[in-house]
Amino acid sequence: MATEVLKIYGDRKSQPTRAVMLFCKLNGIDFEEFTVELFNQEHLSPQFEEINPVKEIPVIFHGDFKLSESHAILIYLASAFPDVADHWYPADAKKRALIHSVLDWHHCHLRRGAMGYLLNTILGPARGLTMNPQSALECEKILKSALSNLESFWLKDTGKYLLGYDQSSIADLSLICELMQFEVLDEEEKNKIFSPYKKVQQWMADIKTATRPQFDDVHQHLLFVDRPRFREAVGRSAN
Amino acid sequence: MATEVLKIYGDRKSQPTRAVMLFCKLNGIDFEEFTVELFNQEHLSPQFEEINPVKEIPVIFHGDFKLSESHAILIYLASAFPDVADHWYPADAKKRALIHSVLDWHHCHLRRGAMGYLLNTILGPARGLTMNPQSALECEKILKSALSNLESFWLKDTGKYLLGYDQSSIADLSLICELMQFEVLDEEEKNKIFSPYKKVQQWMADIKTATRPQFDDVHQHLLFVDRPRFREAVGRSAN
Repeated sequence: MATEVLKIYGDRKSQPTRAVMLFCKLNGIDFEEFTVELFNQEHLSPQFEEINPVKEIPVIFHGDFKLSESHAILIYLASAFPDVADHWYPADAKKRALIHSVLDWHHCHLRRGAMGYLLNTILGPARGLTMNPQSALECEKILKSALSNLESFWLKDTGKYLLGYDQSSIADLSLICELMQFEVLDEEEKNKIFSPYKKVQQWMADIKTATRPQFDDVHQHLLFVDRPRFREAVGRSAN
Repeated sequence: MATEVLKIYGDRKSQPTRAVMLFCKLNGIDFEEFTVELFNQEHLSPQFEEINPVKEIPVIFHGDFKLSESHAILIYLASAFPDVADHWYPADAKKRALIHSVLDWHHCHLRRGAMGYLLNTILGPARGLTMNPQSALECEKILKSALSNLESFWLKDTGKYLLGYDQSSIADLSLICELMQFEVLDEEEKNKIFSPYKKVQQWMADIKTATRPQFDDVHQHLLFVDRPRFREAVGRSAN
């Protein structure tokens, strides 16, 4: 099963797409990349709707097997490719359960807060949308609460990585790719968000160090983002 | 590991708590139930925060192993208890991957739409909150889109259950427990929501039939809900 060529439909501007591609690159899993341009709203096109009626990226094809949802994809890849080291998705039932737990928490907390915050502060206004101040405040609250949980609950003193593990797991990849979206903010705004969370900052630095050069490869457009041009591109995508 | 007595901290008014308890009852897994009263905001108390800093239910203890997040718990129980039949969480990597996929989708779509809708139409107003009309519309849109995806994508013609499987999985339990929250609405409001989705209605009827009497046991307070008293209780919980 693992010898079939993997196809990934996604856009590196999407954090779940990057998490899946980063995992593949770190584990020597070759893939063909099919870009679904978010800024051109290709994910909403009838062509893409045939691939994924939920209209979201990433989607993988492994032979004739199709799968959406990045966490499900990461787990599948870690299980289907026999050369993937155990630490990414441990066979031990309890270690694995805690990884599911932090990934599930991510969906309803960190992702919701982070995406909502960026939509309200930069993506929405750049697209000419009138944002709702109550919703902006609500998202900032969810984001801060999530970062605080990450700092004081999901990161432990026993090990460098999430859940106190001493090696990284698929959860580390998913969560750091989420937080890398904040690279589109100015330095000052970014610092304002992250400065209270020292362990989060250290954890991010540790993962980057451990996963380079592949980390930089999938994040290239974010590491060297030209912010005015980015805002302009977001604005154009609204038309 | 599976011989240790399971403890479940939760409240049957919470759909993820019910999904976990229903799974246990269907699989002959004994548990001790510790009620964390949502209406009394016990999940926000310092005592419960020591158990789960994220302040959410359910949480299980299996011996000294603690786990939060209902999907993670369902997967763990299906893996740790050897007598659980394979169909609940198939060993086959592809079948399993699709279950992860629908569970992940549930988090960001069906749950978000359903909870947001109920908060805006009944829970918020009953608690005396002034709801934001834009947010109410947004939640209704998410809910309808999610029900439409459920109807035409996640339910298939090949089998009765989610993903076209011919036996139920943990995903069926999680999603139906979510939709059972709508029992707090009046019949007319409920029909307005569900009437366009015939396959969803049939699927709900099929699961109920297949999982009785345990289904009715965990949903007792919802099946015989006294709506005026429910609204009053929600209101009291705001004080």
